[in-house]
Amino acid sequence: MASKTLIPAVKGTREFYPEEMAQRNFIYEKARQASRLFGYQEWDAPFLETIELYAAKSGEELVKEQSFVFPDRGGDLITLRPELTPSLARMIAQKQNELVFPVRWWSFGPFWRYERPQRGRTREFFQWNVDMLGVNSPEADAELIAVAATFLKLVGLTPEQATIFVNNRRLMDAQFDALQISPEKRMEVSNAVDRRAKMEAAKWDEYVLELGLKREQLDGLKQILGNYDLWQQSEELIRLFNALEALGVKDYVRFDPNIMRGLLYYTGTVFEAFDVSGSVRRAILGGGRYDNLLRDVGGDPLSGVGFAMGDVVIGILLKEKGLIPAFIPSPAPVLVTVFDASLWMASYSLAAELRAEGWNVITYPEPAKLPKQFKFADRMGVKVALVLGPEEAASGKVTVKNLATATQESVARIEVSAAIRRMLATN
Amino acid sequence: MASKTLIPAVKGTREFYPEEMAQRNFIYEKARQASRLFGYQEWDAPFLETIELYAAKSGEELVKEQSFVFPDRGGDLITLRPELTPSLARMIAQKQNELVFPVRWWSFGPFWRYERPQRGRTREFFQWNVDMLGVNSPEADAELIAVAATFLKLVGLTPEQATIFVNNRRLMDAQFDALQISPEKRMEVSNAVDRRAKMEAAKWDEYVLELGLKREQLDGLKQILGNYDLWQQSEELIRLFNALEALGVKDYVRFDPNIMRGLLYYTGTVFEAFDVSGSVRRAILGGGRYDNLLRDVGGDPLSGVGFAMGDVVIGILLKEKGLIPAFIPSPAPVLVTVFDASLWMASYSLAAELRAEGWNVITYPEPAKLPKQFKFADRMGVKVALVLGPEEAASGKVTVKNLATATQESVARIEVSAAIRRMLATN
Repeated sequence: MASKTLIPAVKGTREFYPEEMAQRNFIYEKARQASRLFGYQEWDAPFLETIELYAAKSGEELVKEQSFVFPDRGGDLITLRPELTPSLARMIAQKQNELVFPVRWWSFGPFWRYERPQRGRTREFFQWNVDMLGVNSPEADAELIAVAATFLKLVGLTPEQATIFVNNRRLMDAQFDALQISPEKRMEVSNAVDRRAKMEAAKWDEYVLELGLKREQLDGLKQILGNYDLWQQSEELIRLFNALEALGVKDYVRFDPNIMRGLLYYTGTVFEAFDVSGSVRRAILGGGRYDNLLRDVGGDPLSGVGFAMGDVVIGILLKEKGLIPAFIPSPAPVLVTVFDASLWMASYSLAAELRAEGWNVITYPEPAKLPKQFKFADRMGVKVALVLGPEEAASGKVTVKNLATATQESVARIEVSAAIRRMLATN
Repeated sequence: MASKTLIPAVKGTREFYPEEMAQRNFIYEKARQASRLFGYQEWDAPFLETIELYAAKSGEELVKEQSFVFPDRGGDLITLRPELTPSLARMIAQKQNELVFPVRWWSFGPFWRYERPQRGRTREFFQWNVDMLGVNSPEADAELIAVAATFLKLVGLTPEQATIFVNNRRLMDAQFDALQISPEKRMEVSNAVDRRAKMEAAKWDEYVLELGLKREQLDGLKQILGNYDLWQQSEELIRLFNALEALGVKDYVRFDPNIMRGLLYYTGTVFEAFDVSGSVRRAILGGGRYDNLLRDVGGDPLSGVGFAMGDVVIGILLKEKGLIPAFIPSPAPVLVTVFDASLWMASYSLAAELRAEGWNVITYPEPAKLPKQFKFADRMGVKVALVLGPEEAASGKVTVKNLATATQESVARIEVSAAIRRMLATN
């Protein structure tokens, strides 16, 4: 086998053969549809950024450990973007005086993280990002959650299969205050909450006590994390759920005090969607409100809310649920056959005429026995084959063959388009 | 100004604000349309590859000098892909026994080259790639040229503005043989031909003589490069032009013996499209037949033909000719206003209902004076605004306002969709 000597792909990268590409496009197309339904504009940022852009937010070490970082020829450290929000903040800040606010933007593109490849995680992945900037209200937060819920609905996931869990950082901070957990400890405690589902109960208790919490504080914390009515104490969450109802997506959303979101920049509403029916435990998407990000990259203060969804987890989930549309190899529903060398160019002309009428048309690339050409059409998922043989040429006709039913009719050349349309409608 | 302290983008990278994104999408959409008209399937390769994949073809030094190359944590040299064809060869070779041939594939994605940024050249760029593998004939070459010509036609470029110049490596080799230019010198002479347009005539003569050609060889070479009937000596080119005529694109294509294509892997037909009317001297697109590429990456021998088009040169050209469609900021033709706090949620419900009917709807994010909301709609290119005020709410109606004509009508809620449709039709 020649393939033994092939130069392999880099670990954690992605090869999109046409079938995988169709799946990526399905996700992209539904993300696009959901974004546009709410009036969001598509944009994109550079794929390469300086390490400083991320260091401003997450600390240089974190970026260096989880990202692809390399020195430029000039010695500057370049990063393959691990996320979009810092680039968004820079681009908004650059045109802060020209843009019409609220800015509603969405994007879909490649990202890279240097992590161990595993189920639901690759080093190269695609991510859908949606953000609104310039409005700070629970209703704006609700709109972002509605965009996410609309996507879930559009791909065919029910609320019983995929749910968006919501919490509020300010609400949790108030609870932490009431338990006299100091502001300096909050980040550690939040991270502990994020890990809770993955740890044994007793081990987790121990871990929290080791962080310096007293037994009463631990008990109080566990009471909070089990209180699913806590949202009623938050004016913001009451307004949020009210708006979600008006937006018609409340059935996809639930309050959950255990949702914390590790990232430093969230300041209010936070949310994460999970597969609640099945086997994928990683979050499908996640986001929240960030009040300080523009200031952190050097812009004027401006509040924003947004979320991101990678293509890998949702791809696994859609496959498991059978929600990826059947793959049709050829984008052309019509094959023009080549009967023999003398009619080759006449067949190409026929194809060209049909293309001018807007049909996607594939041609057989050379003269060959017709059954072989029909077999090719069949393997490519082509529905209709056209034959221009000596008889057809002599009578100014074309044979139009329905490959699904193996029926055919001979029609005048001017009638070909109508005959194809008829056949495709009955297929 | 806060922006003075902003962390800037990396030199040569691209920031796509919504207007630039719309332009990128316009090019992508037309490339997609042209590809699909001929039945090509979309695919994509990894963005990161090992340096060995490119070194197999171009020599490691060339890749290191013109590409972004960096060491992986494991010490392997990783490259940001500078071109697609080596990845294509690897992916085809990996599934050589499963794929249905001819393979007709197209792709559109990001690429990187470490070059000095200048007009028509950025370090980060997008490239459209189209390839057919498994057929070795001038008719297959003609199909690829027809896809390129169809793209030029679809974006509105006439043959007088953009022309595809064609040559044949085998024809040129035969001419070089006749002049007794040795095979070892061919690559250098080819490169000299590529540079000719950019050099003074006398300097070029000198340069070619310095390569070791005799005066008679130089004269013979210049005669060949001025002979635009030379194609008649090539059976392949005669068949190629015959097929281009059948495919209806001959007016976009001309023979030119000066087209050489520097890349080592071309073996037969070569072609490049240029702006023949204007100021952009860099090639719009280029390609040709490559017979040995699969073998070079470790696959079984398989002939292919393809071309690539970057987004930068064509973008400049389309802008200069006024062929980029006018930018409409908002993807939503409809704004739902928010009259006051008491009717806010009713307005959101109205928006949700219209979205369920398939309309892209943007909402004003909070209660505000109506003129301010109309002004926002106007700046976003939104055509129709809906008002749900106390009167409308009391009578079960909605005011539908045509922002272009400043006319409006009050209709029952169930009639809103029809009223919007009417107004958009007359705009």
